[in-house]
Amino acid sequence: MPKNIIVIGSGAAGMTAASAAKRTDPEANVIVFTEDEHIAYSPCVIPWVLEGRTSWNDIVMHDPSFYSEERGIDVRIRTKVTSADGIAKTVTAGGVEYGYDSLVIATGGSVFRPPICGVDMRNVFVVRTINDGKKIEEAMKDSKNVVVAGAGVIGLEMALSMRNSGKNVTVVEMFDQILPRIADKDMADAIQKHLCSLNIEFVLGAPLRAIEGDGVVRGIIAGGKDDNNVKIGCDMVILATGVRANLEIPMMLGLDIGKLGGVVVSETMRPYRKGRPVEDIFVAGDVVQCQSAIADGPTMSQLGSSAVKQGSVAGKNAAGDNAVSGAVASPWVTVIGDLHIAGTGLSENLAGWYGLRTVYGKANGYTRARYYPGGKKMMVKILANAETHMMIGAQLIAGEDATGRIDWLTDAIINGTTAEEFLARAENAYCPPTSMVRDVVISAAEDLCDSLKGRPRK
Amino acid sequence: MPKNIIVIGSGAAGMTAASAAKRTDPEANVIVFTEDEHIAYSPCVIPWVLEGRTSWNDIVMHDPSFYSEERGIDVRIRTKVTSADGIAKTVTAGGVEYGYDSLVIATGGSVFRPPICGVDMRNVFVVRTINDGKKIEEAMKDSKNVVVAGAGVIGLEMALSMRNSGKNVTVVEMFDQILPRIADKDMADAIQKHLCSLNIEFVLGAPLRAIEGDGVVRGIIAGGKDDNNVKIGCDMVILATGVRANLEIPMMLGLDIGKLGGVVVSETMRPYRKGRPVEDIFVAGDVVQCQSAIADGPTMSQLGSSAVKQGSVAGKNAAGDNAVSGAVASPWVTVIGDLHIAGTGLSENLAGWYGLRTVYGKANGYTRARYYPGGKKMMVKILANAETHMMIGAQLIAGEDATGRIDWLTDAIINGTTAEEFLARAENAYCPPTSMVRDVVISAAEDLCDSLKGRPRK
Repeated sequence: MPKNIIVIGSGAAGMTAASAAKRTDPEANVIVFTEDEHIAYSPCVIPWVLEGRTSWNDIVMHDPSFYSEERGIDVRIRTKVTSADGIAKTVTAGGVEYGYDSLVIATGGSVFRPPICGVDMRNVFVVRTINDGKKIEEAMKDSKNVVVAGAGVIGLEMALSMRNSGKNVTVVEMFDQILPRIADKDMADAIQKHLCSLNIEFVLGAPLRAIEGDGVVRGIIAGGKDDNNVKIGCDMVILATGVRANLEIPMMLGLDIGKLGGVVVSETMRPYRKGRPVEDIFVAGDVVQCQSAIADGPTMSQLGSSAVKQGSVAGKNAAGDNAVSGAVASPWVTVIGDLHIAGTGLSENLAGWYGLRTVYGKANGYTRARYYPGGKKMMVKILANAETHMMIGAQLIAGEDATGRIDWLTDAIINGTTAEEFLARAENAYCPPTSMVRDVVISAAEDLCDSLKGRPRK
Repeated sequence: MPKNIIVIGSGAAGMTAASAAKRTDPEANVIVFTEDEHIAYSPCVIPWVLEGRTSWNDIVMHDPSFYSEERGIDVRIRTKVTSADGIAKTVTAGGVEYGYDSLVIATGGSVFRPPICGVDMRNVFVVRTINDGKKIEEAMKDSKNVVVAGAGVIGLEMALSMRNSGKNVTVVEMFDQILPRIADKDMADAIQKHLCSLNIEFVLGAPLRAIEGDGVVRGIIAGGKDDNNVKIGCDMVILATGVRANLEIPMMLGLDIGKLGGVVVSETMRPYRKGRPVEDIFVAGDVVQCQSAIADGPTMSQLGSSAVKQGSVAGKNAAGDNAVSGAVASPWVTVIGDLHIAGTGLSENLAGWYGLRTVYGKANGYTRARYYPGGKKMMVKILANAETHMMIGAQLIAGEDATGRIDWLTDAIINGTTAEEFLARAENAYCPPTSMVRDVVISAAEDLCDSLKGRPRK
């Protein structure tokens, strides 16, 4: 009897799981249920579509017929799963009940809408799906002044996208720095300076308190109560206020929810019910709470790359394999104007949340040999645990080529490398057009080792 | 009493050692003796200078007065060390005897000149120093047809430099592929195809047998004996035939020489004499034989980046520190026309030399999201030890951004990561302008795991 594998959700986790399951067990019946209309695209690209770098049509890699014809996967779009029963092993979708042998839950997350006045008004947007993006595109035609709430990666990308589209843009952030969770203040300030040079305004330390208008947005209020606040006139608000896991299906199934609000999973992507692993359910993507590779605690790794990795493992295992997705450092990268910015592991803020004391090393250099034409500046900061000397995080700002270097640092961090081991072992490939003879990453590690010794800094 | 630290050699290893020694012990007297006229430049850049990308003046980072004034280091150019005595702890340079407390030997290497007819003729060049480069530059004025002997990295860089300068170029290589030591045949063939498209000619499987002419080069003979050979007319020959360690000083000191022809060193960069470590001598750079991080055996890591790393450790330890330079994977990268090519660890050929059986994984993809404009193709190949499943080497061909990714793979390899561990642990930073959501490196690792399971390849 062929195995019935049901996948709920068609984002990166769900579609990767479906493909991995079918490849692992070509005999299996694989069905994907999704409320969405568009599948197989990366929502991460929405800011770049809106500024015209690419188009909605181009970013959709495949339609449902590709999956049925090329991969033998049955994708049911616009089909909501309304209930799931883990004892009977059934789900109900579009009013019909389906039995499963393995179930993959990839229900993703939704943008958190702060419970404030006016948040449901017209021209208040989130950035999550192509349809969200198309609504923003439509509103941009009549918009001049945009407020972005939240200075995380998506907030900054959207701010720049709107600025590059000719809007006046103000970013409102409740913390006193941009990228508050993932970047240290010194690095965040350097990035903010660049964004200011592109004429993006910032109001920091000011939570969004209200959206004003008469059905349509006219402005926002941010900051403290009464007179300790800022009013900004605008005709569009974009909420980039973080993503909360979509827990409806997991809760129907009685799966354990972690303290960060995601479904707790093992490294085979199996969830738990009252602390006991569930054998035939797999959970992947933004709905999941992960184990941190660095600290003794959980983390949410709500990244496209994490979704693909977890989806691949969930899909393989749903089809009978025994794949593993390890604890995470969650590296990220984006391009902000002329800067490639990237990070991995813990920031000083997050390390503090986990109760870790940190020491840092920092180096400035170039992406090419100093004398080679076209080289760009690069700044690398590495954090270590002050007690164990293990590298626990890194951040990088460069004119180019940040991605591979942050992946390199990620590898060292997830391997539990101490700063001293890294300096002793690490080697960098060199040629004048692509790096300094001693890469800036290694110079930062040397500075970190000096700091750990308590030596005067260079 | 301040310590007397003498450094022999002013290449990357020597000058880095001098600076590291002085930084570690600011009271020390640090003297550098060198036969060279120019110091503190990267010979790796010579091919790019010759094609006009940068100039001789720009590539020299510092002159001797910078070292004396800014760093308190005494650099004696055009000063040959003629003898060294490890018992008396003296060296003789420019006819004067100097006592040392610590000696750093960074005498580098010399291009191997094959013992063939005509090798000493005019217009037969090597690429090692600025003066070598200037001689080639002079000869280029009257040259139309260039033969490059040796299809290693430097040979290919010089071939392209000459081609970009309008010469007809033929590369002659004794092995039946380009990059025979560091690249696998499939990857080498792809690179060769690109070079052929740039109108560079290749004669493979054909050792250089003779250089013909009447004092000045008129042509070369390559290949087998008698009629099984090729004659190529040319007016310039560039020997890129590998680098041999300069062992004169080490041999005077009775230091142990390894089977690959370099000075055997510990991980503190100390040499041995009759198998016993020498406490007050340190050796770094092209003159050194290293321990492979992958195989139970030695290797030569004659790279600029290795020289800097080893020089830093040698210099620190010469000044009383206890730094370590680990076993090596020797990552390399270069830019060949439109391709960034890079590798790390063992190739299939080298693995065979060490007696290791290999399995490979391979993936093709892009440097950016598939739909994002400006993305370039990327091909990644990873090799694993068929018995242990440890990753032992990788090669990468891409239109951009190879360097950081090969450093990432290097970290995994020197950490002894198995393919399965890498696939379970590895995470990649993602944004559409700088990577695919699943980086090609990870897709190659997945293909490798499939190969190791004996599954049919995708």
